[in-house]
Amino acid sequence: MPDREPAGETRPIEEDELEPLAVGAWILGAGGGGDPYHSWLNLRRLYADGAKVSLMDPRALDDDALVAVVSTMGAPLVGEERLTDPKVAALAVQQMEAHLGHGFDAVMSLEIGGANAFQPLMVAAVTGLPVLDADTMGRAYPEAQHSSFAIGDLRPYPLTLADVRDNAVVVSRVATWKWMERISRKVCTEVGSLAATCKAPRTGREVKEWGVLDTVTQAIGLGRAVLEARRRKDDPVAAVVEHGGGRLLFSGKVVDVARRATEGFLRGTTRMAGLDEDKGRELRVDFQNEFTVGWIDGEVRMSVPDIICILDATTGEAIGTEALRYGQRVKVVGLPAPAVQTTPKGLQHVGPRAFGYDFDFDPLFPNAT
Amino acid sequence: MPDREPAGETRPIEEDELEPLAVGAWILGAGGGGDPYHSWLNLRRLYADGAKVSLMDPRALDDDALVAVVSTMGAPLVGEERLTDPKVAALAVQQMEAHLGHGFDAVMSLEIGGANAFQPLMVAAVTGLPVLDADTMGRAYPEAQHSSFAIGDLRPYPLTLADVRDNAVVVSRVATWKWMERISRKVCTEVGSLAATCKAPRTGREVKEWGVLDTVTQAIGLGRAVLEARRRKDDPVAAVVEHGGGRLLFSGKVVDVARRATEGFLRGTTRMAGLDEDKGRELRVDFQNEFTVGWIDGEVRMSVPDIICILDATTGEAIGTEALRYGQRVKVVGLPAPAVQTTPKGLQHVGPRAFGYDFDFDPLFPNAT
Repeated sequence: MPDREPAGETRPIEEDELEPLAVGAWILGAGGGGDPYHSWLNLRRLYADGAKVSLMDPRALDDDALVAVVSTMGAPLVGEERLTDPKVAALAVQQMEAHLGHGFDAVMSLEIGGANAFQPLMVAAVTGLPVLDADTMGRAYPEAQHSSFAIGDLRPYPLTLADVRDNAVVVSRVATWKWMERISRKVCTEVGSLAATCKAPRTGREVKEWGVLDTVTQAIGLGRAVLEARRRKDDPVAAVVEHGGGRLLFSGKVVDVARRATEGFLRGTTRMAGLDEDKGRELRVDFQNEFTVGWIDGEVRMSVPDIICILDATTGEAIGTEALRYGQRVKVVGLPAPAVQTTPKGLQHVGPRAFGYDFDFDPLFPNAT
Repeated sequence: MPDREPAGETRPIEEDELEPLAVGAWILGAGGGGDPYHSWLNLRRLYADGAKVSLMDPRALDDDALVAVVSTMGAPLVGEERLTDPKVAALAVQQMEAHLGHGFDAVMSLEIGGANAFQPLMVAAVTGLPVLDADTMGRAYPEAQHSSFAIGDLRPYPLTLADVRDNAVVVSRVATWKWMERISRKVCTEVGSLAATCKAPRTGREVKEWGVLDTVTQAIGLGRAVLEARRRKDDPVAAVVEHGGGRLLFSGKVVDVARRATEGFLRGTTRMAGLDEDKGRELRVDFQNEFTVGWIDGEVRMSVPDIICILDATTGEAIGTEALRYGQRVKVVGLPAPAVQTTPKGLQHVGPRAFGYDFDFDPLFPNAT
């Protein structure tokens, strides 16, 4: 996605950037990460009460600066009903500071896709830390080992987890990233499949080397393109394709959804009957929180790590895996995966095989870098 | 149990006290806590390698001394196959010291019943800390909220948990003791239903006020009585009854066992057909790791918090809930519960209703204090 404007080191995030961030982040969620709508309202309220959040270019970080990586962990379906409290989001960070015995210099999101785009803004509104223009996924993914820091084999621990009841846990050591996922997921599920987390602290050097950079700016730009197309009565889906450097993959109508919330995830599959140029064809898409693989007439045509977005055909608004339902008119768009995810090591973490499928990644954008 | 000899402040635990401790602690396990046999062998090996553990009278603790409360948490069935590594037991304590930022003055067991009687001895052998002559249960119980420190409403957190793979977790805050149980149990189950834990640190004052005191000495005395009765060809079960101030409740033969390992517990029920003076009667006993309630011919005749022990009729050796099987000749003995557990507050935590039964505690020893 081509809008890496040369930003100053740190600038304020304006109130009128929050709605574009919500719209763009929800598209990058690839069906998961949770609808950012309520988080946007929450931030708007905090701004109305005088909060002001600043955005920092990660390239300006000192090598030994200490960065908090935050997210709400859990099943998107639950997140729609139990909203993230900024104080709980900050509590996870404060628990980490207490465990480490020193403070952070900046905060960033684990995943720009979905509501977690707003998690560092909430923490920043409570703590005053700057938000980094970066994340670790460039989208949303369901599990800890899908982050670019895991692809970089950085240390997976410690992690802190806080819930609304004043429970807090530090996963202080783990043997592997998978163990971090297993242990923290169980705790998350036990406290209601939703918890605020602060992931393993990162140095400025680690963020610059392994982070997915400029993704807050990208999400705001993508959202702005959609909102402007709507205002101009243009096609918002075409704006997503154009602005995001993506491809329109399918036009159709949702004819079936099977989903279940298990082990802290929302898993399932959806089928769409083609309309217009896709009349007579059928698209089936699997999901684990996020859309993972799509088959057109039985043939694999899209898969992780490419970003599979199912959008409302008229408004271009993203449709989450928890909100899919019979009869929705949709367009399915593919956006390019961050480069770190299409390397051989990256594909071990986020390719189709990492999600249990028995085939290799066939990129939608073979020439993307 | 009446063997509270006035001990000096601190004395060495001699190698020839380890077997009596294993035998006595297994009886006090009330079917749970895991067979101490392998832990005893482990300690004997450590002693042979030069380790020496000392036993400290808790009354000698300074009020502001800091005490580590340790246990192996999990399903007894698993503990029979995966043995506790003293280094992992110590790791949980060391993780707690790192989290707190300072060290401990002594170590004590969460529960004297079963293999956890040896847990502080293992930690002591690695760290050099003295072992307190005390625990928090006077027996074994399955859950965190059953400890006397929970009955005393002391702070339930933090807790550290370590496994053999180098995973470690700090439960740094919880809303209630039940939440501590829920969260730590899930983590324990995820790492294989067995983990070394260090419970919430206690001050010397808290231990003196709320601990169950002198229980290491009691377990050693009980085990010695059994071993001596065997040596003299006397009845070891009679020795348990006499030494422990208990009652013989039933003599019979195991005719049925139903058990399942679920959610980190070993749950089930066993039935015994009466022999000798109990011929024609039937005893049924439920268990959740430990024996909880017994019915003779359909009538409740024994329950938590009284200590229900199923012993081999010939050797007086305790039979664990994981080792019950058809045809065993057994004698069932009741031993008095520690006084803190028979108070109204105590019964809220460990009475029959706390284990899901719809009746009140009817003590076997109404005059016990």
